[in-house]
Amino acid sequence: MTPDIAGREPYQGDAALQGLLSEQGIALDAVAVRALVAGVLAAPEPAADPEAWIALVAPDASPALAAQLRALKAVMQADVAPDVEADRQSRRERLAALRAELGRRGLAGYVVPRADEHQGEYVAKRAQRLAWLTGFTGSAGLVIVLAQRSAIFVDGRYTLQVRDQVDLTAHEPRHVTEQPPADWLLAHLKPGEKLGYDPWLLGPGLVERLSAACAKVGAELVPAEPNPIDAIWHDQPPAPIAPVAPHELRFAGRSAPEKKQEIAQKLAADGVDAAVISDPASIAWLFNIRGGDVPRAPLPLSFTILEKDGTARLYIDPRKLLPATRTHLGNAVMVEPPASFAAGLDALTGKRVVVDMATAGAAVLDKLQRAGAQVVRGEDPCALAKARKNPVELDGARAAHRRDGVALARFLAWLAREAPSGRVDELAASDRLEAFRREGEFFRDLSFDSISGAGSNGAIVHYRSTPATNKRLEPGTLYLIDSGAQYLDGTTDVTRTIAIGAPAPEMRDRFARVLKGHIAIAASRFPCGTTGSQLDPLARHALWQAGLDFDHGTGHGVGSYLSVHEGPHRISKVPNSVALQPGMIVSNEPGYYKTGAYGIRIENLVTVIEVPRPDGGERDLLGFETLTLCPIDRALVDWSLLTKEEIAWLDAYHARVRATIGPLVDAETRAWLVQATQPLSGG
Amino acid sequence: MTPDIAGREPYQGDAALQGLLSEQGIALDAVAVRALVAGVLAAPEPAADPEAWIALVAPDASPALAAQLRALKAVMQADVAPDVEADRQSRRERLAALRAELGRRGLAGYVVPRADEHQGEYVAKRAQRLAWLTGFTGSAGLVIVLAQRSAIFVDGRYTLQVRDQVDLTAHEPRHVTEQPPADWLLAHLKPGEKLGYDPWLLGPGLVERLSAACAKVGAELVPAEPNPIDAIWHDQPPAPIAPVAPHELRFAGRSAPEKKQEIAQKLAADGVDAAVISDPASIAWLFNIRGGDVPRAPLPLSFTILEKDGTARLYIDPRKLLPATRTHLGNAVMVEPPASFAAGLDALTGKRVVVDMATAGAAVLDKLQRAGAQVVRGEDPCALAKARKNPVELDGARAAHRRDGVALARFLAWLAREAPSGRVDELAASDRLEAFRREGEFFRDLSFDSISGAGSNGAIVHYRSTPATNKRLEPGTLYLIDSGAQYLDGTTDVTRTIAIGAPAPEMRDRFARVLKGHIAIAASRFPCGTTGSQLDPLARHALWQAGLDFDHGTGHGVGSYLSVHEGPHRISKVPNSVALQPGMIVSNEPGYYKTGAYGIRIENLVTVIEVPRPDGGERDLLGFETLTLCPIDRALVDWSLLTKEEIAWLDAYHARVRATIGPLVDAETRAWLVQATQPLSGG
Repeated sequence: MTPDIAGREPYQGDAALQGLLSEQGIALDAVAVRALVAGVLAAPEPAADPEAWIALVAPDASPALAAQLRALKAVMQADVAPDVEADRQSRRERLAALRAELGRRGLAGYVVPRADEHQGEYVAKRAQRLAWLTGFTGSAGLVIVLAQRSAIFVDGRYTLQVRDQVDLTAHEPRHVTEQPPADWLLAHLKPGEKLGYDPWLLGPGLVERLSAACAKVGAELVPAEPNPIDAIWHDQPPAPIAPVAPHELRFAGRSAPEKKQEIAQKLAADGVDAAVISDPASIAWLFNIRGGDVPRAPLPLSFTILEKDGTARLYIDPRKLLPATRTHLGNAVMVEPPASFAAGLDALTGKRVVVDMATAGAAVLDKLQRAGAQVVRGEDPCALAKARKNPVELDGARAAHRRDGVALARFLAWLAREAPSGRVDELAASDRLEAFRREGEFFRDLSFDSISGAGSNGAIVHYRSTPATNKRLEPGTLYLIDSGAQYLDGTTDVTRTIAIGAPAPEMRDRFARVLKGHIAIAASRFPCGTTGSQLDPLARHALWQAGLDFDHGTGHGVGSYLSVHEGPHRISKVPNSVALQPGMIVSNEPGYYKTGAYGIRIENLVTVIEVPRPDGGERDLLGFETLTLCPIDRALVDWSLLTKEEIAWLDAYHARVRATIGPLVDAETRAWLVQATQPLSGG
Repeated sequence: MTPDIAGREPYQGDAALQGLLSEQGIALDAVAVRALVAGVLAAPEPAADPEAWIALVAPDASPALAAQLRALKAVMQADVAPDVEADRQSRRERLAALRAELGRRGLAGYVVPRADEHQGEYVAKRAQRLAWLTGFTGSAGLVIVLAQRSAIFVDGRYTLQVRDQVDLTAHEPRHVTEQPPADWLLAHLKPGEKLGYDPWLLGPGLVERLSAACAKVGAELVPAEPNPIDAIWHDQPPAPIAPVAPHELRFAGRSAPEKKQEIAQKLAADGVDAAVISDPASIAWLFNIRGGDVPRAPLPLSFTILEKDGTARLYIDPRKLLPATRTHLGNAVMVEPPASFAAGLDALTGKRVVVDMATAGAAVLDKLQRAGAQVVRGEDPCALAKARKNPVELDGARAAHRRDGVALARFLAWLAREAPSGRVDELAASDRLEAFRREGEFFRDLSFDSISGAGSNGAIVHYRSTPATNKRLEPGTLYLIDSGAQYLDGTTDVTRTIAIGAPAPEMRDRFARVLKGHIAIAASRFPCGTTGSQLDPLARHALWQAGLDFDHGTGHGVGSYLSVHEGPHRISKVPNSVALQPGMIVSNEPGYYKTGAYGIRIENLVTVIEVPRPDGGERDLLGFETLTLCPIDRALVDWSLLTKEEIAWLDAYHARVRATIGPLVDAETRAWLVQATQPLSGG
């Protein structure tokens, strides 16, 4: 008997479903629908429109059919194993099963990366192989399993988390740059042994480094297909099926054919015949489509081969495409199933093909080289064009930030009322902010899992609050909230640090220094050709003078209803050769973290703009327009550290926030806003 | 009849010389002495001790022998062809002769670089092949001669100079990065043709690029030995023979055996067996020796192979070594003739050998690879150790800068008296400064040809005044003087910009912005690990705000009685990954140039120092100590643009200059100094 889900019709069985499908003239049978629903369940639950998938089965489903589809999904959902959850014992069994599988294949070991075929930040449930095997859920990591030992390599962000999540008796933790995989292989791999890897999941650079390390000990790195984890992961989710919708021209600003023509012409101008595009964000941008296969970013997992004559092949599960999307793509794009991608690469024999080393799996290179194509190691041809937002996208970003500003003001006003009670905790606070955001027009999802850190939790740069770590916001502490949203017209990302009660003088000193860095970036003017790397020290200088610094970049690119992290530009100590260009959106987020005590970060999104030449100026200048509209906690500023110009910047920013957001909020919030945006000078 | 040189004894002939040599028990015959003197004449005239070379013949020459040697040199000097001077007609004949030589060798063309075997900034007369062929005397350039056409490639500094110096009907001028040699070869080289190059003179990177370009058109880049220019340059000077003297421990601070041991241990720690060192500055540092083979830097042209067990071979013309130097090198260094260097490379079969791609000719790599050595492309192992000056070198630098400060104060006081007359010109001014410097203890030479630019000549960044360009210093203009000296205890490099009469408001605005950048660097504190690239924007920020910038680096490393330009660190827009470290000396020289009007540059040398952690600081901090002691023209500062802190920095700097230099100068200069260093605040 199928269980009834509260308030819903029970599932009547496949035969009944089949009947309803036939009634509406749907060619799918119940088996196909079950496969499709399994894919839907393997995608993240969409925040904005959880039933959009029904149109993938039947564009105009009758109420009865819709109800049965809903019921079938509920039934199947109850059967799905929980996300990569397992106890220590079952993880040991998985490791043993993997070793047995490697033994059957004659492999001495195997490399399990965190990445999927697209080398992106988020991966679908099906691709969470590292988490399934080890429990580690960080956004970057690598395990190498040998017969007798295994090591997990993570970066500095995750040295604590790996100890919480992973059975260290099974996997030795290592710092990926200080104790790199190559060194560990040199110590533990033996001559003649074969170390397996999945060429779709490892980038060509990593393959080259591991291969060199294996060669040094007389061992060999060999591709192992099909993936050995997939072979033993019996309840592995299928590939996700999230509806792919057109991204409307009123948001995208430029039509897909126009973009395709521009990029094809760029290929021709660069002297290449075709580009292989592995980054779903580039594909979404190029074709003006949005999907939902991974959490927090509307990405349609897919590959594209674009030729210089404009021929475009989109390798994507056709079941994801809403009818409107099929119409939207039309004849200009040849939709092919993912299984045909390898054949598509093979067909590039004799051509010069540009491949982005940062987003392509090694298999793409291997196949192209075997097919006799000439591989040009270049940059994704969409990356720069996607980063330079057009005027419609920029207007969308401004509108999205007004909406986001309303939610933030309501949240901060609420926090000002509630926090003194001492009853607000991290999860309650971030839930409240999410609820305010959901009320905004065009809201689709958060743009990343909120970082809601009270007191010492605020000092953990990549903190995610859980019921186990959840802290109350106590008087005399700081509260750091880093959050953002996906709106159809723009992606937001903002961090505010709020004093709960009276802040200590040291906190006000540190906050003022972080603010000086923030203002130095926000107010800077710089000649065309300047890179984010060149601006980075401006954000740190005031901290340096006090012997302080922060250990993350100052800013990352942000997409337009796309990934909250995008390239090719950034503001960072790490050398980056991409000049900042008008229309690029980038975060401005200096910080300061005192381990075990508190964290400070002040983050606005800014967009690069042309700045008129001052009288007598000789260079074309660029600067930033700040997009984020949210008060910065005046109670946290040690004003004595700010220059007149810095105070004037903050006053002008607050005046703009008040003038823009004030008319859009309720009276109570407005009263708070007026107080929170009082000017210091003449105030 | 040999001519009599004013005030000297006439040369009595080889037989008489032979007699004097035998009398003193010198084993050399007159032929050998003539060869040695030819080498002496092929080296720059030493500024400090023009007769040091006599000791190379006879350590204790009798007055009669010394007089005859002097006389022989005078006779031979009169016979030497003038330095690479020639009229247009003779240059055409040289080009025709080269083409004929190439035809005889079956070469379609030939690559003539500016560099010698050491890829350094200065080259000896013998190696000035590019200037001999084309007339171009810039510090970087390349000619490619084909049968029907020829192109000369220069960078942005030399686009004007190349037009002045080179017959453009013979050599087409090209911008080396915008119109690179590879493109030109693609257009003009034909399949099957052979393009020759001298593998000792071209670096491996350039050889790889040119080789790839040749391959694209089905042509071939081939080594052509011996050098075809040398084959047709009948009066080519011999290799220079300048005396190589020990660099005393009281200046060097660390003994040569100690340095050798440290570098050998570093090789062992890096897992390499040997290093090939092509940079004469590194060799001078390693063995505590100084020479004089090229202008303005006390370099002994030579090669070294250092093995990890400390075995050191120095490939150098033994005739250069003063007796004291032979004693100083002792048994710890095996001195071998330059002709044995190739055999030394051959002997490295089977070894891991580190080679610095930036200073080694391609021939070094070729020979090592043919010998079966494993080449490790790394950095000159002496570069970083040489850059981090030890306490004795730093004390020497401070003393040298005091002496330099005395000369500068005397010069600027003189200029303040004389300039109003309107009779001072660029050459007179720089001659006067040189004369003051020559009076300083330990003075050996200038560290580069002074840049003495009045008015619009000051806007030419690499200007060298000549009788043809020499300008008077006119009221209402700026005068820029960039100069430096080689003292036994340190190398200096300083630029001052002086208002002649009353400066215009725009000049004072620009000068204040350059000064703000200068102070931002001088006063900065930064965490260990920070690179010069990260500091660079601090020097430009105030200019950027006015739509201005300058098109050169902010700072270069400086040697200790060595080259005025040294690596591996620098302060530059160009990414540089070398962290600044205590003891490094670097220039701090932002500028501003208005073409056709005036130039501004404010340059001090600074050294990296450890800075105490401020209260509550968490990072180890570094900062700078300014070494240069010379007033900055207060009349040129628009004080309204400076912050309180900037004014305080300038006042404190001026107080230090006054307190240090005041007691060392005459009363008239002191009176000027007191006025020039008046504080603004409370002054």
